[in-house]
Amino acid sequence: MKTISPFAPKSLPRLPAIDGARFATCEAGIRHANRTDLMLGLFEPGTSVAGILTKSKTASAPVEWCRAHLPHGMARALVVNSGNSNAFTGKRGRETVGLTVEAAAQAAGCLTADVYVASTGVIGEPLDAGKITARLGELAARASPDACENAARAIMTTDTYPKVATREAEIGGVKITINGIAKGAGMIAPDMATMLGFLFTDAAIEPAALHSVLVAAAEDTFNAITIDGDTSTSDTLLLFATGAAASRGAPRIAKGDDPRLANFRAALTNLARDLSHQIVKDGEGATKFVTVMVTGAESKVAARRIAFSIANSPLVKTAIAGEDPNWGRIVMAVGKAGEAADRDRLAIKFGAIDVAKDGAVAPDYREALGAAYMKEREIVISVDVAVGRGSATIWTCDLSHGYIAINADYRS
Amino acid sequence: MKTISPFAPKSLPRLPAIDGARFATCEAGIRHANRTDLMLGLFEPGTSVAGILTKSKTASAPVEWCRAHLPHGMARALVVNSGNSNAFTGKRGRETVGLTVEAAAQAAGCLTADVYVASTGVIGEPLDAGKITARLGELAARASPDACENAARAIMTTDTYPKVATREAEIGGVKITINGIAKGAGMIAPDMATMLGFLFTDAAIEPAALHSVLVAAAEDTFNAITIDGDTSTSDTLLLFATGAAASRGAPRIAKGDDPRLANFRAALTNLARDLSHQIVKDGEGATKFVTVMVTGAESKVAARRIAFSIANSPLVKTAIAGEDPNWGRIVMAVGKAGEAADRDRLAIKFGAIDVAKDGAVAPDYREALGAAYMKEREIVISVDVAVGRGSATIWTCDLSHGYIAINADYRS
Repeated sequence: MKTISPFAPKSLPRLPAIDGARFATCEAGIRHANRTDLMLGLFEPGTSVAGILTKSKTASAPVEWCRAHLPHGMARALVVNSGNSNAFTGKRGRETVGLTVEAAAQAAGCLTADVYVASTGVIGEPLDAGKITARLGELAARASPDACENAARAIMTTDTYPKVATREAEIGGVKITINGIAKGAGMIAPDMATMLGFLFTDAAIEPAALHSVLVAAAEDTFNAITIDGDTSTSDTLLLFATGAAASRGAPRIAKGDDPRLANFRAALTNLARDLSHQIVKDGEGATKFVTVMVTGAESKVAARRIAFSIANSPLVKTAIAGEDPNWGRIVMAVGKAGEAADRDRLAIKFGAIDVAKDGAVAPDYREALGAAYMKEREIVISVDVAVGRGSATIWTCDLSHGYIAINADYRS
Repeated sequence: MKTISPFAPKSLPRLPAIDGARFATCEAGIRHANRTDLMLGLFEPGTSVAGILTKSKTASAPVEWCRAHLPHGMARALVVNSGNSNAFTGKRGRETVGLTVEAAAQAAGCLTADVYVASTGVIGEPLDAGKITARLGELAARASPDACENAARAIMTTDTYPKVATREAEIGGVKITINGIAKGAGMIAPDMATMLGFLFTDAAIEPAALHSVLVAAAEDTFNAITIDGDTSTSDTLLLFATGAAASRGAPRIAKGDDPRLANFRAALTNLARDLSHQIVKDGEGATKFVTVMVTGAESKVAARRIAFSIANSPLVKTAIAGEDPNWGRIVMAVGKAGEAADRDRLAIKFGAIDVAKDGAVAPDYREALGAAYMKEREIVISVDVAVGRGSATIWTCDLSHGYIAINADYRS
């Protein structure tokens, strides 16, 4: 029933240990049998945390918990389950979060305010707290620095491969490690699309600085991808910094604009881009990985809107699935974005091929050129709207029969 | 290759003659052979016109012509072709419009400013004006009051049935007739989605009043439907009022708020709703006709945004195609609309079935009830977001394998 994405990596990179972070997973039987669906992360005292949460007006109970506690900025535990998103579950959903964080705090020996939670899976069904709370003591007892890849597997729902990445950086001349795990925005009935990303580092960075670094890293990575334009009730991205590198002489960074963060920022953004592309490449039914680059817009915001308008257009996405160089649909998507564009100077490229120039088909363009290009697995669409200097890049996948099959053909 | 929509009418209503309006069509060979693809409408002197045009920033040359001339408000001729949208064709596209309106003015014996044009079909390919201008004299010579249905056929692209409607109204005690024809937002590679609607009446209504009546009629009809959320470069809705009813004693109406227009307004809105529903029911791959009703929003604008968020969600649309009562996806779509909603008082109904209430699944709801309802061909989804008194209704269709097949499987 489930086809592995053609972009699935042949092998996973090995995730090194992050000093100060340990993980454990188990089969809690939350929805499906014979798969891990619960992870616990434990962090040494002094670990700071930053997060970015869904803007959905119907956010889940776990998202609300994180939103309430992130300003505090310190973390000792992370509990994530797959199979049930605990979203739209009313008062009972909040009770489940309450019981979960209490049990986790007891297992970790910390305050409930230091516990973060995330859930992904079906919406609107009560999540039995007992299935989680009963296991946390045992998980804490066997948590290990080497189980980060297991954690990536336990948070999967309709993902066809686990998403992991690791990078090295330096702060003040001391080597820093960053690991990241994520699950995709793909979904299969009856599970709900959700993007979850958890990043771990041994850097010593205080909460406010960590937040500014995370927001900057997410802008052109996790916030620049789209599968189908739908937004989950549960999207969560958290970055934990244990500070363990301080014991090896790394400076403790208090300000987001500290120049000593330059290398760390670059490595974090690079890791975030890697993970976010892995999510797109595992989009439901994806057969093409598409980069949409918009230049010449009035501002970066305008460029992003135009790029998202192209990347979310069902007509553009189905044309790509059909390997049809139908650039008229790109003109349409530029037009509907509502942002300024000079129609008579608009230019479009497929890869290096000039398709449209000065508001009409390019003189040397031949349909056969575009058709050959569209057979590539990775497609780059560049659009210049010729009114300013704003630019943005967005990544997406095509809209294929596979997406419909996954989302329409199998009933919950 | 082309499957007729399951909603296609068994027979078409007969369109009565509109005094002062005549039509003719021909096979101009613009793109495909053996089909009519050019229509000419001729109107008696004194005919007023009002219009609503696409908001696309990459609007076509014919749309630009109409936008420039609508303030003038008088019309003697309408030229519409299918097969080529004359969009994104640069300077050459404007020249084609210029040659077309000149030939039409000559054929109709009027000024070019009194000629309106619309084109639908492939984007970005030059439209040969000669194929149109060579035929307009002949069309004018044989234009007839009885050819309105033929006009509906000539403007079709991927429509699987012609869309016509007629209504009677009275103004000042005199019987008035309104005819309407439209083509759908469906498309098949390589033609481009476009909504064209042309309405004709013998009422005597001056341009400014006609405009206000048309805008009001379109708001909850043509502007309240969506197939896939994509916006054409060529969307055009024009209303022509010949004024011929004045010779039978109908008053000439100068103000949009004239109370004598009440019956006409209602009939026009009713006709517009009929045509707009016909367009949705002929949406590409449509197997379900879906009504999305949102109540309890902060304003009508907010209610429309939430309703469009539901109606355009690929996840909601694929669930409906799969007859899956997946109401969690509706919660998601409400959340992503960005408008105020009280998550903990949200209510959802499928038809008369309470699905969710007070922010959680309704106590008596059973999956089997929802599953049985989703087998209906016409689905009504009601959502109350419990923050205010704004309400709106939007109509859409499902997203099925048929849509992908039409838009991805066949190359241009």
